[in-house]
Amino acid sequence: MIGADGYKLLTGLVVPRPIGWVGSRSSSGVNNLAPYSFFNAVSGDPPTVLFSPGQGPGVRRDTADNVKASGEFTVNIVTDEVAEAMNATAASLSADEDEFEHAGLTPVPGVVVNAPRVAEAKAQLECRLAQDLHIGREGGGSWLFIGEVVAFHVNKDLLDGTRVDQRALAAVGRHAGNLYSRTHEIFSLIRPD
Amino acid sequence: MIGADGYKLLTGLVVPRPIGWVGSRSSSGVNNLAPYSFFNAVSGDPPTVLFSPGQGPGVRRDTADNVKASGEFTVNIVTDEVAEAMNATAASLSADEDEFEHAGLTPVPGVVVNAPRVAEAKAQLECRLAQDLHIGREGGGSWLFIGEVVAFHVNKDLLDGTRVDQRALAAVGRHAGNLYSRTHEIFSLIRPD
Repeated sequence: MIGADGYKLLTGLVVPRPIGWVGSRSSSGVNNLAPYSFFNAVSGDPPTVLFSPGQGPGVRRDTADNVKASGEFTVNIVTDEVAEAMNATAASLSADEDEFEHAGLTPVPGVVVNAPRVAEAKAQLECRLAQDLHIGREGGGSWLFIGEVVAFHVNKDLLDGTRVDQRALAAVGRHAGNLYSRTHEIFSLIRPD
Repeated sequence: MIGADGYKLLTGLVVPRPIGWVGSRSSSGVNNLAPYSFFNAVSGDPPTVLFSPGQGPGVRRDTADNVKASGEFTVNIVTDEVAEAMNATAASLSADEDEFEHAGLTPVPGVVVNAPRVAEAKAQLECRLAQDLHIGREGGGSWLFIGEVVAFHVNKDLLDGTRVDQRALAAVGRHAGNLYSRTHEIFSLIRPD
């Protein structure tokens, strides 16, 4: 069952995946924006995220090239309101085309990093590349980009102190193929001692 | 906003996170099972997953110690039916206590790896450690364990070829604090060309 089928089983079983909607800027100043679901938080101290540009059909290299060159990127949080726009930025544009324009989104400069944020996203993280490594086969496999979060921007309607209202956020999860899930059905499990 | 608050913002914004319910075995033969949500698929070829034992309150070291020593682990998929049992395995047991017994779960030996699977889970992945690395501060931070999936076990009722029925799977996502989400509300977005 491993091989070509491994990708389908993996993306169908490791769900729901959070979506890192990654903003970056090329050395010639073109804004880039693309969604990645091989993405997650990986450490809290300092706050650290990781994403991996996949090797599936239609894989694009613009984000990887920009992040390697600049060492900076943003992660924009995908919620119900921007899910369709996120999907529009998954189109295969060439490196000199701007996904913000293509999807009708408003770029906002990072305060700390040289990468664009999505104004329409309820929350945005500014990140600095801490480590990058290669996994899998030589000449194939994937890149892992590990970035430290150096600034958080969160719509204040979502916040009670540093607690993020999960129902109001309404984040979207990634599943296999063309499938996504909503996070409307939140429940609580009290962690045992 | 960075610092102690960074962890809360990060775990409240990077959602929904898939749950890697990691089975491992100590050198003295004690089965261990614990949930991690700093976990995801990171590459499809070969199928590869990654998890990071966090540095939050109540962090346990048994899984990290076992995986470093044996180089092998399982990932069990958390769905509606086993969510409460998963939570029970988050209890702080000592290294010589078996979470399977504690939570009333049935361990099944890996076919390829020396680590236990959860019989009650609808899907289980057997994994071999490919790389481990440290991220963040010296003397703190987190470990990243990157593992290649060497065997998939999936309840055949979920499968149409290698397509996993997302509604029948009913995976559970992790949010901040004690919060989780169900994946009952699946929708489709057709990827543009």
